[in-house]
Amino acid sequence: MTVKGTVVLAYSGGLDTSCILAWLIDEGYDVIAYIANIGQEEDFEAIAAKAKAVGAKKVFVEDLRREFVESTIWPAIQANALYENVYYLGTALARPIITRTQIEIAKRENADFVSHGCTGKGNDQVRFELGYYALKPDIKVIAPWRIPAFYERFPGRPALLEYAAQKGIPVVQTAAKPWSTDENMYHISFEAGILEDPDTTPPPDMWKLTKDVLTNAAEKPEHLTISFKNGIASKVVNHDTGKEVTDILDLFLYVNELGRKHGIGRVDIVENRFIGIKSRGCYETPGGTILLKAHIDLEGLTLDREVRRLRNEAGDKLGLVLYNGMWFSPERDFLMAGILQSQKYVNGDVRLMLYKGNIVIEGRTSPNSLYDQHIASMDVTEGFHPGDSEGFIKIQSIRLKAFAHLRSKFE
Amino acid sequence: MTVKGTVVLAYSGGLDTSCILAWLIDEGYDVIAYIANIGQEEDFEAIAAKAKAVGAKKVFVEDLRREFVESTIWPAIQANALYENVYYLGTALARPIITRTQIEIAKRENADFVSHGCTGKGNDQVRFELGYYALKPDIKVIAPWRIPAFYERFPGRPALLEYAAQKGIPVVQTAAKPWSTDENMYHISFEAGILEDPDTTPPPDMWKLTKDVLTNAAEKPEHLTISFKNGIASKVVNHDTGKEVTDILDLFLYVNELGRKHGIGRVDIVENRFIGIKSRGCYETPGGTILLKAHIDLEGLTLDREVRRLRNEAGDKLGLVLYNGMWFSPERDFLMAGILQSQKYVNGDVRLMLYKGNIVIEGRTSPNSLYDQHIASMDVTEGFHPGDSEGFIKIQSIRLKAFAHLRSKFE
Amino acid sequence: MTVKGTVVLAYSGGLDTSCILAWLIDEGYDVIAYIANIGQEEDFEAIAAKAKAVGAKKVFVEDLRREFVESTIWPAIQANALYENVYYLGTALARPIITRTQIEIAKRENADFVSHGCTGKGNDQVRFELGYYALKPDIKVIAPWRIPAFYERFPGRPALLEYAAQKGIPVVQTAAKPWSTDENMYHISFEAGILEDPDTTPPPDMWKLTKDVLTNAAEKPEHLTISFKNGIASKVVNHDTGKEVTDILDLFLYVNELGRKHGIGRVDIVENRFIGIKSRGCYETPGGTILLKAHIDLEGLTLDREVRRLRNEAGDKLGLVLYNGMWFSPERDFLMAGILQSQKYVNGDVRLMLYKGNIVIEGRTSPNSLYDQHIASMDVTEGFHPGDSEGFIKIQSIRLKAFAHLRSKFE
Amino acid sequence: MTVKGTVVLAYSGGLDTSCILAWLIDEGYDVIAYIANIGQEEDFEAIAAKAKAVGAKKVFVEDLRREFVESTIWPAIQANALYENVYYLGTALARPIITRTQIEIAKRENADFVSHGCTGKGNDQVRFELGYYALKPDIKVIAPWRIPAFYERFPGRPALLEYAAQKGIPVVQTAAKPWSTDENMYHISFEAGILEDPDTTPPPDMWKLTKDVLTNAAEKPEHLTISFKNGIASKVVNHDTGKEVTDILDLFLYVNELGRKHGIGRVDIVENRFIGIKSRGCYETPGGTILLKAHIDLEGLTLDREVRRLRNEAGDKLGLVLYNGMWFSPERDFLMAGILQSQKYVNGDVRLMLYKGNIVIEGRTSPNSLYDQHIASMDVTEGFHPGDSEGFIKIQSIRLKAFAHLRSKFE
Repeated sequence: MTVKGTVVLAYSGGLDTSCILAWLIDEGYDVIAYIANIGQEEDFEAIAAKAKAVGAKKVFVEDLRREFVESTIWPAIQANALYENVYYLGTALARPIITRTQIEIAKRENADFVSHGCTGKGNDQVRFELGYYALKPDIKVIAPWRIPAFYERFPGRPALLEYAAQKGIPVVQTAAKPWSTDENMYHISFEAGILEDPDTTPPPDMWKLTKDVLTNAAEKPEHLTISFKNGIASKVVNHDTGKEVTDILDLFLYVNELGRKHGIGRVDIVENRFIGIKSRGCYETPGGTILLKAHIDLEGLTLDREVRRLRNEAGDKLGLVLYNGMWFSPERDFLMAGILQSQKYVNGDVRLMLYKGNIVIEGRTSPNSLYDQHIASMDVTEGFHPGDSEGFIKIQSIRLKAFAHLRSKFE
Repeated sequence: MTVKGTVVLAYSGGLDTSCILAWLIDEGYDVIAYIANIGQEEDFEAIAAKAKAVGAKKVFVEDLRREFVESTIWPAIQANALYENVYYLGTALARPIITRTQIEIAKRENADFVSHGCTGKGNDQVRFELGYYALKPDIKVIAPWRIPAFYERFPGRPALLEYAAQKGIPVVQTAAKPWSTDENMYHISFEAGILEDPDTTPPPDMWKLTKDVLTNAAEKPEHLTISFKNGIASKVVNHDTGKEVTDILDLFLYVNELGRKHGIGRVDIVENRFIGIKSRGCYETPGGTILLKAHIDLEGLTLDREVRRLRNEAGDKLGLVLYNGMWFSPERDFLMAGILQSQKYVNGDVRLMLYKGNIVIEGRTSPNSLYDQHIASMDVTEGFHPGDSEGFIKIQSIRLKAFAHLRSKFE
Repeated sequence: MTVKGTVVLAYSGGLDTSCILAWLIDEGYDVIAYIANIGQEEDFEAIAAKAKAVGAKKVFVEDLRREFVESTIWPAIQANALYENVYYLGTALARPIITRTQIEIAKRENADFVSHGCTGKGNDQVRFELGYYALKPDIKVIAPWRIPAFYERFPGRPALLEYAAQKGIPVVQTAAKPWSTDENMYHISFEAGILEDPDTTPPPDMWKLTKDVLTNAAEKPEHLTISFKNGIASKVVNHDTGKEVTDILDLFLYVNELGRKHGIGRVDIVENRFIGIKSRGCYETPGGTILLKAHIDLEGLTLDREVRRLRNEAGDKLGLVLYNGMWFSPERDFLMAGILQSQKYVNGDVRLMLYKGNIVIEGRTSPNSLYDQHIASMDVTEGFHPGDSEGFIKIQSIRLKAFAHLRSKFE
Repeated sequence: MTVKGTVVLAYSGGLDTSCILAWLIDEGYDVIAYIANIGQEEDFEAIAAKAKAVGAKKVFVEDLRREFVESTIWPAIQANALYENVYYLGTALARPIITRTQIEIAKRENADFVSHGCTGKGNDQVRFELGYYALKPDIKVIAPWRIPAFYERFPGRPALLEYAAQKGIPVVQTAAKPWSTDENMYHISFEAGILEDPDTTPPPDMWKLTKDVLTNAAEKPEHLTISFKNGIASKVVNHDTGKEVTDILDLFLYVNELGRKHGIGRVDIVENRFIGIKSRGCYETPGGTILLKAHIDLEGLTLDREVRRLRNEAGDKLGLVLYNGMWFSPERDFLMAGILQSQKYVNGDVRLMLYKGNIVIEGRTSPNSLYDQHIASMDVTEGFHPGDSEGFIKIQSIRLKAFAHLRSKFE
């Protein structure tokens, strides 16, 4: 039997991608297992060994954590990009990091194919594949969960388990959880299973990263100063412990650790997937929630009012672009050009307290503050003539008066 | 001495407006004191008596609480309107309610003048006066804090106290607080004084409406269901106490009470005033914070994706319009037309838990949900062909591939 | 052979849909031919007879011209909706009119299927089918140009001609034009064939509806007054001929006739199709170009500045919604709510001259103008205090001065 | 009498600024007359001599034409920035050029004051002064038309003429035109006087720069190719004369000359001034109209669809920023960052014909076109699977179907 070609498979070590690995081999492909370390809690050596055992020709484990923080997490925070006001985009931000290296491996190893284990109804298939196509327009994608020969053969978990047994794939999982998760350094998501009823309260033991504010979040608050340069955190000081962190990766992991301890960053929403289906998702984004709140506070001090408005609009648009998997797109270039222009002024320190789910801003300073305490003071009038306000208001009222006359004709 | 005319003064009973009342009389005006009850904690009878004592020809106390909830608070929540992502607009929403009745009194009493006690640097002078001019374009406004004869005579609190003593105005206040406040049913704001340094942490005893999550917020969580009709809460049930409230005013006050008890709704920001000055403000909006969060959650279930995006943009714009005092404007009419169109679908129940500053969404249902559990399920494929996603992704990738080719020419 | 079911086919009488009609019968369907009169220049009786001759079980000819003008053309003009600043949406506006009646026939005749002759690369397949699905979510669509059994059998015009000959379908067309067209009352479009090279100048004899400004447009200008009520033209007077038209359909056709005579409304662009492909299109929209220009001019006199801005944004968004085939969507409801709110003020007369491609605005009046000649006058100062402008400018400069100080720190 | 200080006056040589010059001297100032050559048709030596004669201590004539084209005209065209869809911003774009040099002179000459001759009701006072304050926050502005001592002394033209006679100021103007104008290289504006009635048709002899399409525009069309680099025209070839121009200033002047000859670029609108007054303005922008149309056409070929949308929104916003005099602002920096990012792809040639007010696009090419003739072709299916469109449409229909079900519940 001739080999159909080489596939670089984004491999997680789980049941699905293990069966896909075996199935691709059955189908006549050489498979390279590619394991991306984006900060999820896993034993990467064990996963690599498993891939080898299942039959991968080659296995690559790549530590992408620093790239993840630098290349997608921080730009998203600089933009204050959320999806539908609430979701911190934790999965969406990881996908470009994974696809970039996957395509690099495909190019280096002369593989014509890439593959992933995403379902046919979700956002992630879109995010993976738009990344693949943007980075290598002639790449061929194998998405088994959209191929009838695959999904009809494996209509549910039992069929996968049977195939795994037959192929000698070790299934370390005990009883499957009644939901799906996607975890990385930035967040964990929960969906499907019992969560499909949007009126079902997530069971307390579902939440994984963060402590529960009702039961086991820390009893003592902690006080931090986060320093920013160009809209990116450059230093964190914990005033209760004296700890100080400056490396971009260490800093992120440390703020994450604090967010987890204080029960920060849980979200439960019904969101709109790119493919037009509503979906219920629960998320934990401990560090990101803290960093974004501190960032937006410092912008209050350092961004001009009109720039803040434009950055807000750009950030909202970027949130949509990222959610929809358009990281490698000219619209991201456009949006980031303005956002980066604004961020060069976002320098300074934000002081905050963490306690049982709360992030309390306690103060902020900036070497390039636009806040002028002298002018803002209610008691001082130098540099500001109250009469100017009179003219300002009179001019603002002109069109409202004109409209009042007009409207009276319609009543 | 001939009388210059009649002034309707928005009177609070405080030192400033009491001195303004006396000063206007000195200047030769007949003064009508108008006291608006918008839910602030005050003894309105005592204020009315004080106005009489200072010399007001007439005194009107108006209970505007129901109108406040119905006419401005709920439209703002339907729009999810915030200013600069954070501020719930508590003062801005009260001003149109106050000005509407003030102008009605001016018309009824044939008064040519209205007056207020706002400073010359703030937003409220704008909000009051744009309301006045929109409702009665030929009204004449007396803003003493912008009149040199007034503000030069009263450069600070001691001069006001001296004048009050001279005029026999009782000053019930003990030591003045080192900040200014504006309170109504929806919120209280704190600014000026020691808060002018944006790096000064507000002292714990500044906060007035809400309990402190660190010290005295309730130790036991409470569980609510808030029911909405057309985007407006129509019923609240407290599952821990069995209490049920349906009247729009009672409901608002009850949710407010719960928010206060659980330490919900504190905000501390540096914001951009309409007149171009940055200002540091602290706010407590207990009930509003709960209601808006529940509202936005229900929109997740009931609004179409594209409508949600449009409503978001309209809500952001409305937040700016309201902050800037443009309630009585054609742009509000325009924005609300779309928002109300969207809200007819926002019906259903949201379940949530309140605990130490946290509002935790626990579930939601709607008789007109757009969520289709059957389609959203990851396990079911009826009604959805995975192959459709393939086509969708391929089509989405066309322009990204084209751009990838183009970009490669520029590298 | 059992019948597979009944198909309502959108039938144009051309070679493509005639072959589709015959092919559907071959495939075992009963076919109802549905011929929509949306103002294209055709012999509808002859088309109906042809459908009968080819084998249609039933034939319906529907005069939808008035509905077209009222239901989609005027809302688009009220919104000043264009696609990519240039295209008047002539095809996009016709599709909802066609699909609405097609689905009504399907319901009435208990047909499970609808069919159209659109290609698999264009916008029209999307517009037809999104209309079908929105109006009858369980409808089944047969799109032959996306079915391999069809498009592989008919790879080009010769195969279609051969099949037509075999089926006895009369082909009245002489030599085919080297481009495709879509014509209705609002416009005609040209694309494909020799136009696929975006650097090929369209030959003068391609243009069909409008005279050529270089050769045969009228030598004498004509002067019109167009009167509007609620943003819709209610009367047109031709001052050179005395002709006066008020009926909405007659008025539209008359302005169209004038536009054609004076060479107005040609456009040649490279546009972005919904499916992500760039496409070169040429269009003639004679009457629409005149009416939209008059409408936008009257808005200058009657709309408040901020409303105009909001209506502009809504109109731009609506242009995209309509182009993409989302007429029957909640986002159109949302956008139109604001637009219609604004249009109740758009009343008045616009005078204009037509001459060789030019539409020259000569004046405008409105019973509810917001223009105040007295205030606008440069010579008069009553009602306007120049000092107010001083205050206005000073206040506007505050944040620019603050930023100037800040920027100097970065230089 | 001691000198109050030195004023740099923006001097035009006209009656108003000549009287202002003399009046400032009367008031005790040393005056430096600053004459900006921004391409208006004037005898600058004569103006300079006049300033000297009236009493200016120093006179500076500055040729700012190249700076004007490079610094403000082209960025505005790159953004396709118009105000209210129609106005090319000809005056607004000149103001930053004038103020920049005026402030440079003030700094160099140690002048504490600047002055201009703008009225108190217009946009230009705002544009001048926001420029002054942004460039030198401590500058002092003398705006005589807002100073009662000035405008009450000179309530109309006769008073100015009398003062001019008294001061020996030569008044070369013959009978004053019944409107005001502002002219520069980019455009001329007409307003006030008989134009204040928005229903008065401008008399044919008002228009100055452009020929009249009815009477004296050229009888023969001309055919051009305009080449762009990064969204800026780099070469123009006239195919009828063979003339070729590449220098940025010469090119602009040449296209302007052609526009004038062919009667291109007249506009007559009712617009909304920044100060809230509606105003009727007529404009001629011959070259700008041609260049912007060619630019937008080339963007059709070279900009990604989503980038085009974002650039459109940014351009609309920039039009407002520029109209309102906010050139020297952080919001312009933000907007231009995105716009410039997009323009690096706007390279290529646009062919067009000019004839009697018409600009007819005849074709376009680009070395980095995003148009793929192969894919766009209706006849070819390689590289594009019609089945993909099916999936795309099905996915797009999901939410419309869901909404159709929901809406049926409300009917």
